Amino acid sequence: MPGREHFAPGLTAENCKMSEAAKLAVIGTVAIDQVETPFGKRERVFGGSASYFSYAAGLFTPVALVAVVGEDFPEEYRGILAERPVDMTHLKTLPGKTFCWKGQYGNDLNTAKTLETQLNVLLKFKPELTFKTQPKYVFLANIDPALQLDVLNQLDRRKLKYVACDTMNFWIENKRAELLKVLARIDCVVLNDGEARQLTQEPNLIRAAQKVRAMGPGHVIIKKGEHGVLLFYNHEFFALPAYPLENVFDPTGAGDTFAGGLMGSLAASGDLSFASMKRSVALGQIVASHTVEDFGLEALRRISQDNIRERLEIFKRFCSF
Amino acid sequence: MPGREHFAPGLTAENCKMSEAAKLAVIGTVAIDQVETPFGKRERVFGGSASYFSYAAGLFTPVALVAVVGEDFPEEYRGILAERPVDMTHLKTLPGKTFCWKGQYGNDLNTAKTLETQLNVLLKFKPELTFKTQPKYVFLANIDPALQLDVLNQLDRRKLKYVACDTMNFWIENKRAELLKVLARIDCVVLNDGEARQLTQEPNLIRAAQKVRAMGPGHVIIKKGEHGVLLFYNHEFFALPAYPLENVFDPTGAGDTFAGGLMGSLAASGDLSFASMKRSVALGQIVASHTVEDFGLEALRRISQDNIRERLEIFKRFCSF
Repeated sequence: MPGREHFAPGLTAENCKMSEAAKLAVIGTVAIDQVETPFGKRERVFGGSASYFSYAAGLFTPVALVAVVGEDFPEEYRGILAERPVDMTHLKTLPGKTFCWKGQYGNDLNTAKTLETQLNVLLKFKPELTFKTQPKYVFLANIDPALQLDVLNQLDRRKLKYVACDTMNFWIENKRAELLKVLARIDCVVLNDGEARQLTQEPNLIRAAQKVRAMGPGHVIIKKGEHGVLLFYNHEFFALPAYPLENVFDPTGAGDTFAGGLMGSLAASGDLSFASMKRSVALGQIVASHTVEDFGLEALRRISQDNIRERLEIFKRFCSF
Repeated sequence: MPGREHFAPGLTAENCKMSEAAKLAVIGTVAIDQVETPFGKRERVFGGSASYFSYAAGLFTPVALVAVVGEDFPEEYRGILAERPVDMTHLKTLPGKTFCWKGQYGNDLNTAKTLETQLNVLLKFKPELTFKTQPKYVFLANIDPALQLDVLNQLDRRKLKYVACDTMNFWIENKRAELLKVLARIDCVVLNDGEARQLTQEPNLIRAAQKVRAMGPGHVIIKKGEHGVLLFYNHEFFALPAYPLENVFDPTGAGDTFAGGLMGSLAASGDLSFASMKRSVALGQIVASHTVEDFGLEALRRISQDNIRERLEIFKRFCSF
């Protein structure tokens, strides 16, 4: 089958099913968002870094979701997660309301303005990992670095193969010490360009990435929204444009589903070579390109691995010379 | 020889020499600039859109320079142009001073702030083309669209193979009617992202490019500085990141030398297929990546086709997955 070798092993025409213990786990937020873009406003969108991540990763491999919700968390949203092989054993319900983020995008759709953040049950969240078989791949999605550290402390390092994390401007500014401790203990960090510059105080992204690597992670991935993504590892480098889209509808979750596609592909293949990293970054980009075509998870819910395969082939043609 | 087929024919280990009538001509400005970057300030830098273009194109093919200078134009600058196969027959000297641009770059190095523009002899410039053999490839570099039209009117359309143009925010705002007339008569336009948005009032670059194509040019190229370049043609699309640089010293001339590399490569090969366009866009990017590593033409003066070949091979590895 032509081009077959370019796909992560395990990425077949059929979607992934939960058949064994998840090799991949994510800790992060599960949220009820309110999102406003130039194209419309939507109340109560199913969101959160870990929701987006796990739904996207579930296209490639079973994934364990470590997160907290409140008593108001709709059964309907659980049903959405169940459309993919998402293990919800560690999705805890606490008294109170689910975490809520309200954001707004301007005409350029590049940066979200946070209108309101209600932490709610997140304030009481103490993750307790009780895996029978510890996942080898772990993603610490955007959440308080103190919680990311807490999770790292509960994991048996010897059983880990690859740990990556995300973060955001708020933690870089307000929890820098904790974040640096996380960075010192992981294999990969995924940042956007503004965060990389903020973390390092270095305007040049190539030098910023080198400074981030000096903080610990061997792999540094810098997301640049509509301008694509950069991957750094030792003296290796990979740059990929964004998949060209005429209609970007809602950028929320693009970064989280990028990371989900990336980590899902890596965990499914078990291959951490640079070639596999590049392929997985490209697959992450493709997943994210679907995400932004509708509110919340709506666009991702409509796609299968066939759609990803199709867009990946087009993407390869668009980028090769 | 491995990878040989990826180079434009004519791009050999030796640099290009003037041996026959130029197949490529450029009209644009020749200037004496004053440039200030976070890394230093330089008075009297040899600049101008046509100078940068012809010096870069001269790496690939002989190029005829159509421009005007004042009586103060240093003999030394003529000597710099003569380092490449630049035909200066159409470089006219008029009484008065050479065009002068003074610009300043902030820390992000992405956009130049124009401090002063002294048009000087440009105000009296009336290009008169007296080619024995009319070049088949023409680049209308950034200059008043009225002059671009004037040149187009003097050319025999039947003998033209490919005409491209550049422009800038000032002409889009103040000479829109003339610019639209130019666009209706050319094969390719090279714009930066801000100019594409300004020209079309469309924030999404993919849709903006489609709108520009509807104005005339079959090929639309959108330059995004540190974020690379996009090429549009019918249903074809090509996206290329920027060559990664740790040290961007002075971005002046990046766009003009990109166009010079692109058009030089196209004219040298005589191949206008989409594959050749992609290769030429990549070569343009490589030439521009050298340009920005020093003030003015200084970095380009130090390189040969071997350096371009070397960087192109690295670039291909950086972009492929």
